[in-house]
Amino acid sequence: MKAAIIGATGYGGAELIRLLYHHPDVALQSLYSSSQAGESIAVNYPHLQAFAESELQPIDPERIAKEADVVFTSAPAGVSAEMMPQLMDSGARVVDLSGDFRLQNTAKYEAWYQKQAPDERYLRQAVYGLTEWLEMDITDTQLLSNPGCYPTAALLALAPLVKQQRIDTSSIIIDAKTGVSGAGRKPAAATHFAETNDNLKIYKVLQHQHTPEIEAMLEAWSGVSEAITFSTHLVPMTRGIMTTIYADAPKDMTAKELTDLYQESYNDCYFVRVREQGTYPGTKEVYGSNFCDLSVTFDERTNRIMIVSVIDNLVKGAAGQAVQNMNRMFGLKETAGLDMVPVYP
Amino acid sequence: MKAAIIGATGYGGAELIRLLYHHPDVALQSLYSSSQAGESIAVNYPHLQAFAESELQPIDPERIAKEADVVFTSAPAGVSAEMMPQLMDSGARVVDLSGDFRLQNTAKYEAWYQKQAPDERYLRQAVYGLTEWLEMDITDTQLLSNPGCYPTAALLALAPLVKQQRIDTSSIIIDAKTGVSGAGRKPAAATHFAETNDNLKIYKVLQHQHTPEIEAMLEAWSGVSEAITFSTHLVPMTRGIMTTIYADAPKDMTAKELTDLYQESYNDCYFVRVREQGTYPGTKEVYGSNFCDLSVTFDERTNRIMIVSVIDNLVKGAAGQAVQNMNRMFGLKETAGLDMVPVYP
Amino acid sequence: MKAAIIGATGYGGAELIRLLYHHPDVALQSLYSSSQAGESIAVNYPHLQAFAESELQPIDPERIAKEADVVFTSAPAGVSAEMMPQLMDSGARVVDLSGDFRLQNTAKYEAWYQKQAPDERYLRQAVYGLTEWLEMDITDTQLLSNPGCYPTAALLALAPLVKQQRIDTSSIIIDAKTGVSGAGRKPAAATHFAETNDNLKIYKVLQHQHTPEIEAMLEAWSGVSEAITFSTHLVPMTRGIMTTIYADAPKDMTAKELTDLYQESYNDCYFVRVREQGTYPGTKEVYGSNFCDLSVTFDERTNRIMIVSVIDNLVKGAAGQAVQNMNRMFGLKETAGLDMVPVYP
Amino acid sequence: MKAAIIGATGYGGAELIRLLYHHPDVALQSLYSSSQAGESIAVNYPHLQAFAESELQPIDPERIAKEADVVFTSAPAGVSAEMMPQLMDSGARVVDLSGDFRLQNTAKYEAWYQKQAPDERYLRQAVYGLTEWLEMDITDTQLLSNPGCYPTAALLALAPLVKQQRIDTSSIIIDAKTGVSGAGRKPAAATHFAETNDNLKIYKVLQHQHTPEIEAMLEAWSGVSEAITFSTHLVPMTRGIMTTIYADAPKDMTAKELTDLYQESYNDCYFVRVREQGTYPGTKEVYGSNFCDLSVTFDERTNRIMIVSVIDNLVKGAAGQAVQNMNRMFGLKETAGLDMVPVYP
Repeated sequence: MKAAIIGATGYGGAELIRLLYHHPDVALQSLYSSSQAGESIAVNYPHLQAFAESELQPIDPERIAKEADVVFTSAPAGVSAEMMPQLMDSGARVVDLSGDFRLQNTAKYEAWYQKQAPDERYLRQAVYGLTEWLEMDITDTQLLSNPGCYPTAALLALAPLVKQQRIDTSSIIIDAKTGVSGAGRKPAAATHFAETNDNLKIYKVLQHQHTPEIEAMLEAWSGVSEAITFSTHLVPMTRGIMTTIYADAPKDMTAKELTDLYQESYNDCYFVRVREQGTYPGTKEVYGSNFCDLSVTFDERTNRIMIVSVIDNLVKGAAGQAVQNMNRMFGLKETAGLDMVPVYP
Repeated sequence: MKAAIIGATGYGGAELIRLLYHHPDVALQSLYSSSQAGESIAVNYPHLQAFAESELQPIDPERIAKEADVVFTSAPAGVSAEMMPQLMDSGARVVDLSGDFRLQNTAKYEAWYQKQAPDERYLRQAVYGLTEWLEMDITDTQLLSNPGCYPTAALLALAPLVKQQRIDTSSIIIDAKTGVSGAGRKPAAATHFAETNDNLKIYKVLQHQHTPEIEAMLEAWSGVSEAITFSTHLVPMTRGIMTTIYADAPKDMTAKELTDLYQESYNDCYFVRVREQGTYPGTKEVYGSNFCDLSVTFDERTNRIMIVSVIDNLVKGAAGQAVQNMNRMFGLKETAGLDMVPVYP
Repeated sequence: MKAAIIGATGYGGAELIRLLYHHPDVALQSLYSSSQAGESIAVNYPHLQAFAESELQPIDPERIAKEADVVFTSAPAGVSAEMMPQLMDSGARVVDLSGDFRLQNTAKYEAWYQKQAPDERYLRQAVYGLTEWLEMDITDTQLLSNPGCYPTAALLALAPLVKQQRIDTSSIIIDAKTGVSGAGRKPAAATHFAETNDNLKIYKVLQHQHTPEIEAMLEAWSGVSEAITFSTHLVPMTRGIMTTIYADAPKDMTAKELTDLYQESYNDCYFVRVREQGTYPGTKEVYGSNFCDLSVTFDERTNRIMIVSVIDNLVKGAAGQAVQNMNRMFGLKETAGLDMVPVYP
Repeated sequence: MKAAIIGATGYGGAELIRLLYHHPDVALQSLYSSSQAGESIAVNYPHLQAFAESELQPIDPERIAKEADVVFTSAPAGVSAEMMPQLMDSGARVVDLSGDFRLQNTAKYEAWYQKQAPDERYLRQAVYGLTEWLEMDITDTQLLSNPGCYPTAALLALAPLVKQQRIDTSSIIIDAKTGVSGAGRKPAAATHFAETNDNLKIYKVLQHQHTPEIEAMLEAWSGVSEAITFSTHLVPMTRGIMTTIYADAPKDMTAKELTDLYQESYNDCYFVRVREQGTYPGTKEVYGSNFCDLSVTFDERTNRIMIVSVIDNLVKGAAGQAVQNMNRMFGLKETAGLDMVPVYP
């Protein structure tokens, strides 16, 4: 199989190159970039020397659709929406890593992204690919919308309880923390080392565009539309997301009962590792890998459930889940190319 | 005035040395250490060369009480409780940085600290010194119990609303994050650089001993005893605490109204800087200083209040507030020795 | 005394604000910025809230010269050279933190800085202010050129031996390492957190513009013009410079003899702390302070001298030494405003 | 093939588990640990959950020799020497990651390691495995001594010039920098996060035990015994070593000529990537991989050669090279299990 990457010079693109290199069934067809066409990727990413030496190509949707079996679009929000019609009309099968096709509700997209929503003809075809909870066969799906990094960590943490209607979704508070690579590679004051190192910041307070993405999925699972509280913090580390989630318990529970529920729910999911009761994951424990590690407990003093999940934002939160979705779309083994031990320490 | 420091070789002790050096009215009488007596502090802390060259002394409560006007005890929990009777019987005026005298409820102390509670005769004399909200005159106080780092950040953030009975304390969730210096200087697996760097961890889940300290103060302010949810995370940075606090609003509010309330509440408090509506502090913005910076907002979608506070855990969260309390006890200017610009970046 | 800062929004400018706030004899007259005029400095640096609330002013050399007793110019290379004639013609006394007036040799300036050299009429008046080794009275100096961060660390480490002609300057190799704040505040790929964290890079190999500055001073001290090897590394930390220096010893020496020489040489220099033989400084031990800590030893196996020096690049390597030079220029106590304990950890 | 790891709970051991998991031809036979026998490795390394669940075994050399085709000994210096006789007498083929069998000169071992040298009967059989420069067939070697992390980086950088007698080895100065994982997992003051973060330290000045290891190899290549200068710095990062090397050039050279020489020398070495002239590697560019990236240049002003090399200390500097050596010993493809894209950023 041949894979094309559009937007290969961003962090998501670079991570796709790493993962696909290790994939037994896929070869890189070519790398595409609007801004760096003509250069070798190794000029921007010297770590790729020996892996991806050919020139970055300008973006030509028709040619890409013809030559590649699968196309990963890793462009900024807005840009993806613009190029998608041509790609899809040319017959490409696409895994889109942008936020453009995650919200079926275009009003919400426009409110939270402050951009024009994508053309509904294409949007309607998009399948939201939180892989572990995909309920449909996607072997014929043309456009797979890859979930956001935060929603992946939060939704995997919430799914077992919400799907079984065991918590009131209106009580959910998600305190999320991310490493700096989540902000992308473009230099900015907010990601300058001296501004970020030894500093913990909260950002986009009450305004993060991943909020409606999480709410939409919770509604799909619970049948009820509720607003949640979702806050995002920037942690002085390169990779990693942790969500700490609080929710009221409708009735008495025990930590053991909750842990059992989670272990059962994820029993067949290789990439979700539920920790033993009383132990909790750190972000480094999934560094460089496609795992989501999580723990759940019950606070008897306040009758609240607490859930903690960690992922590598560039792998399970972006490129890794994209490859996992591609594996599903093409009937490959779900772990193909992704069965990597986390890099620790 | 002469100040003695007991437990000078820990991070709290070292920070006291730094702050007292800059204090216009206080000189160091001597430094005391059970473990390192006979050595110069500069052997353990080369940054103090030229500032504190004299030998560390073994702990002799009577002599200390006689020679020093004020004694800072910066020993681990349990140790402080043991030495306090002798110190106080000898007439010393003490600012205690340990957790031993913060909980008047001895049963709670024993449950959360897993240690025997201090002798009640001394405990009853302890005044809890959250300086900005001290309601009594402490110029005659003999034993001032300095608040914990987390409680300082959380309580300063909550005080204006709780004291005015404007939130239901049972709804409070405090998601707290700390730098690694909060764990003390003793080497341990949990503070090893390679285990901590580029890693975000949650720890002591539902078991942090600062929980009852926060609850006791909320009860004192609100008149109602309620359990709260309090979680603690270890962030790969040296100094800094951030608390992100969520609480249900009993009625509609606006961010502006809340910000106004906070600005009024802290109008006369030099060390609390309320940020303008819509802006939020990072921990680095108080690095090395005694400030607590905070922001408050209202989420109209969920009817929840969010409060964010940051402090330097070693300054406002320990040595700085201790000096501030000393200033109060001795009738000095509250900012004496503490009027420092944060070190940024 | 009143001080003006031109270029107040860079890291050097912000550090000047911090240091001058603590200075007993100096008040800030005003802050000037070409790019941010009209804003409060606290918008760019929230840590300065409560310290520097007045508006940034556009740069008006005549007015500045009239209203301020001393002017700190903390502008990029090239910009300082442009504004200096007007400032000086208006009678301002200036401490210049840029590289523009450090090289009397204009050909070398143009070769290494790749910019047009400053007007020689003004250049000739500039006094190079490596404070500890200033041999002239500067109480009448109009233009004080503040040394670069690397040259400060390297020259303080080399001075005792070079001035006594005890090493061959042609054998000197300086392996220098800096924290990221040395690269300034402007966002760039090279200072992006994700590119810099957990990464050690070498940069400007054989091309660093501080090379001729170091060589010029060595020539002034030794009487011989020699090229040295000087390399610069970017370390994932915010502040701090370390230079590790190697030089051939013309004759047998001992570590003790060398340490004694250094201790004598710096006996009267408050800001240079020579470490005891066999111990070596880390950069954190001078963090936030104006100290240069250094050690020297002798390798009997190779007959080489090794010297290690550390400074905080923003203090002794920039703003701190600038204030120290101002103190000299105006006959103030050399340590005024600078007598600060390093912030550790 | 079955591989045993002795000392599986250290960082070297954990990295071996990661690499061998990805190895197509090798399965883990078992993990051995004197200190943690009976526990699962995942208790100490939660990132290994799902990869290495079986119990750690007590060390039983005879059983290990019988059941494993290859044994990796990743124990501290001294411990390896003690267990080796029994292992070898039982017929085990061993790759030893300790320093015990790297120095054939027992007097030097004892002087630099401050421990008793290993039994010469076994020491004589040890082959020093700097894989790229191994000149003998090791398919029958019983004891392969894996090089130290610093020597690997330094020797790969120096080999092309030294082997061709193109530099005087007595002029070599190696300024080396390492991440903190190189100090091992045992908690210590020197590796405490708060002591190490935002801090750059020099350590073991003139006393690092890797010095004679480097010198021995240089002597083997050049035929001349010379002392070199080798210094080591602790950088606030988890993984990575950089060596910056300076040497006098016996005659005029050019950067191009040197780069050509290096590219030719390493043309057939997959794991050594020589950078294009004028570009230099950062440590992150080999993170998690077995690459050694290097650059060489010539300083015409001082007639000195400069070489820069980077490796991941836990991979090419330890476990990776150990696997590479195992591949050689057993006639496997040299890149088997090691063909991994570096994890960047």
